[in-house]
Amino acid sequence: MRAGFSSEAQIIQEIQRMAARPKNRRLALPIGDDAAAFRTRPGRLILVSTDALVEGIHFDLRYCSAEDLGWKALAVNLSDIAAMGGTPLYITTSIALPRDVPPDFVPRFYRGLTAIARKHAVSLIGGDTCQSLQGIFLDVTIIGEVEPKHLLTRRGAKPGDLIYVTGELGGSGVGLELLSRSRRHAPRSAATRRHLRPQPRCPAGRFLAEQRLASAMIDLSDGLSTDLGHLCDQSGVGALIEVARIPVAKIAIRQRQLLPNAPLHYALHGGEDYELLFTVPSRLSQRVPKQIDGLPIHSIGCITRSTGVWLVDGQKKQRLHSRGFDHFAQ
Amino acid sequence: MRAGFSSEAQIIQEIQRMAARPKNRRLALPIGDDAAAFRTRPGRLILVSTDALVEGIHFDLRYCSAEDLGWKALAVNLSDIAAMGGTPLYITTSIALPRDVPPDFVPRFYRGLTAIARKHAVSLIGGDTCQSLQGIFLDVTIIGEVEPKHLLTRRGAKPGDLIYVTGELGGSGVGLELLSRSRRHAPRSAATRRHLRPQPRCPAGRFLAEQRLASAMIDLSDGLSTDLGHLCDQSGVGALIEVARIPVAKIAIRQRQLLPNAPLHYALHGGEDYELLFTVPSRLSQRVPKQIDGLPIHSIGCITRSTGVWLVDGQKKQRLHSRGFDHFAQ
Repeated sequence: MRAGFSSEAQIIQEIQRMAARPKNRRLALPIGDDAAAFRTRPGRLILVSTDALVEGIHFDLRYCSAEDLGWKALAVNLSDIAAMGGTPLYITTSIALPRDVPPDFVPRFYRGLTAIARKHAVSLIGGDTCQSLQGIFLDVTIIGEVEPKHLLTRRGAKPGDLIYVTGELGGSGVGLELLSRSRRHAPRSAATRRHLRPQPRCPAGRFLAEQRLASAMIDLSDGLSTDLGHLCDQSGVGALIEVARIPVAKIAIRQRQLLPNAPLHYALHGGEDYELLFTVPSRLSQRVPKQIDGLPIHSIGCITRSTGVWLVDGQKKQRLHSRGFDHFAQ
Repeated sequence: MRAGFSSEAQIIQEIQRMAARPKNRRLALPIGDDAAAFRTRPGRLILVSTDALVEGIHFDLRYCSAEDLGWKALAVNLSDIAAMGGTPLYITTSIALPRDVPPDFVPRFYRGLTAIARKHAVSLIGGDTCQSLQGIFLDVTIIGEVEPKHLLTRRGAKPGDLIYVTGELGGSGVGLELLSRSRRHAPRSAATRRHLRPQPRCPAGRFLAEQRLASAMIDLSDGLSTDLGHLCDQSGVGALIEVARIPVAKIAIRQRQLLPNAPLHYALHGGEDYELLFTVPSRLSQRVPKQIDGLPIHSIGCITRSTGVWLVDGQKKQRLHSRGFDHFAQ
């Protein structure tokens, strides 16, 4: 970590203060040296993932607070570890800030980040804070662990496997729609919370991995149509999804009069729900619970030998193309 | 890693192609899933560090190439692992690019990055590529390992320890001065190469750690005056540096007529030399070699009980304040 003039030193002190919790016995050297150091558990695999958030592309401070941003920057990374069946352990954060950023941005950002970090017992162990000429750039790298036999990838889906999702789909997309219309710190509702404070499904991911139920898993960051496509591509299979089985977010149905698209559109293409999409061999499907820790699990279709993702609605069958949340197209 | 439209998919394919080398038996799951996974060695500590590079703050494409940038983005992180006495293993990269970036920027960036990655047997295992509204933002997280007994921190310096540096100091600062004057892809010289293609001192760092010679270590990213201050602060000690012993870069002396500051200024405050600064208990000082793998080692002073860093030049003694390379001040 670089250090420059006093306000950067203050930022670093603030981060170190917040990073001190939760206490972690495996942490041999915390934030503040050239690198952090931690002990590993014998036999475990180390998981690593990185996600960046860029102002004007991934977020807009007109309708999300610095705390929301801190929460979300970590939530999207936790979701990646959840999708591997792993346990999150540590994060590093890189932040580039323009000179005109409000002075309370950094402590508020870290307040949001540490709130979700504590919830998942994750420790901040490193980072870099610097200036940007325009716009805020955030990058979080997460480190987790998993037993090799519990590792879940996008590659294991086989023809005949059933396809499941956790929770509801489309709530975040509806929230983004409502927020971007109001273009201000919108009143908190179920939908805006779904978008601003996603809940990564780490306990469900671990349960599925430890029970050896899932054959493949991915998190729904870009939307069902895109992420199911990734899972199918990497497994070399196709999928049939039954429209009637998709757990469309209740908020999408309730707010349908206000929305330019049908509720199903948000469930298929909305993105940023950070639910888990997983496949289960049919012989194990009886063992998939209806809920995991209160989180509903829905079967929405099955994996096919022929490639391509198809949507079945009664007698109608149509190809489902990727139209997920495209950060480049905004 | 997110995936969006085709050019982003192409970028990711390009990265995956480059990431495939070097082969790594410990890598259980390479780039391309929600997270990468690797096996650990029993008993080793895992090291983690992150450094961001922001266009207009840390680099200027008028005088550094995309290949230089790829090299440097990794070099500064390798230097952090070197400073811990560790061995670098893996990296993740996050890149935010404006729409007007030249189409060959990404492959050229990764060409520079993989050139130094191969040299240090480091594998690229993850990343995120997205758009930025203005300016290029790069963030590299590095993961390394070290035996607990070999871990070197900034905290171990004791009064009476001798202070050493590897290589020469000030060459990078002189290179930056010459480059920023020419404001173009300057002809490569020893000085500009020092700035654009720093050589992280991983072999020297490992040697010092394995020989149990050093009591504390830091890499010289911000300049001797700043980084020695960090080491002293964290060790709760002070330092005396003898001006005559500082290995001022030959290029600074040779080019002194062209430079606005004296050669010593660059050696003390220039920054970005990425040499190692370390302390050795006096009883072990006889064992410190003159060179490590051809890299000269110089003793430049000693650690004192009273805090503060002092510069001794014959009969003169003056306080040395941090005036290192300040990214915020550019």
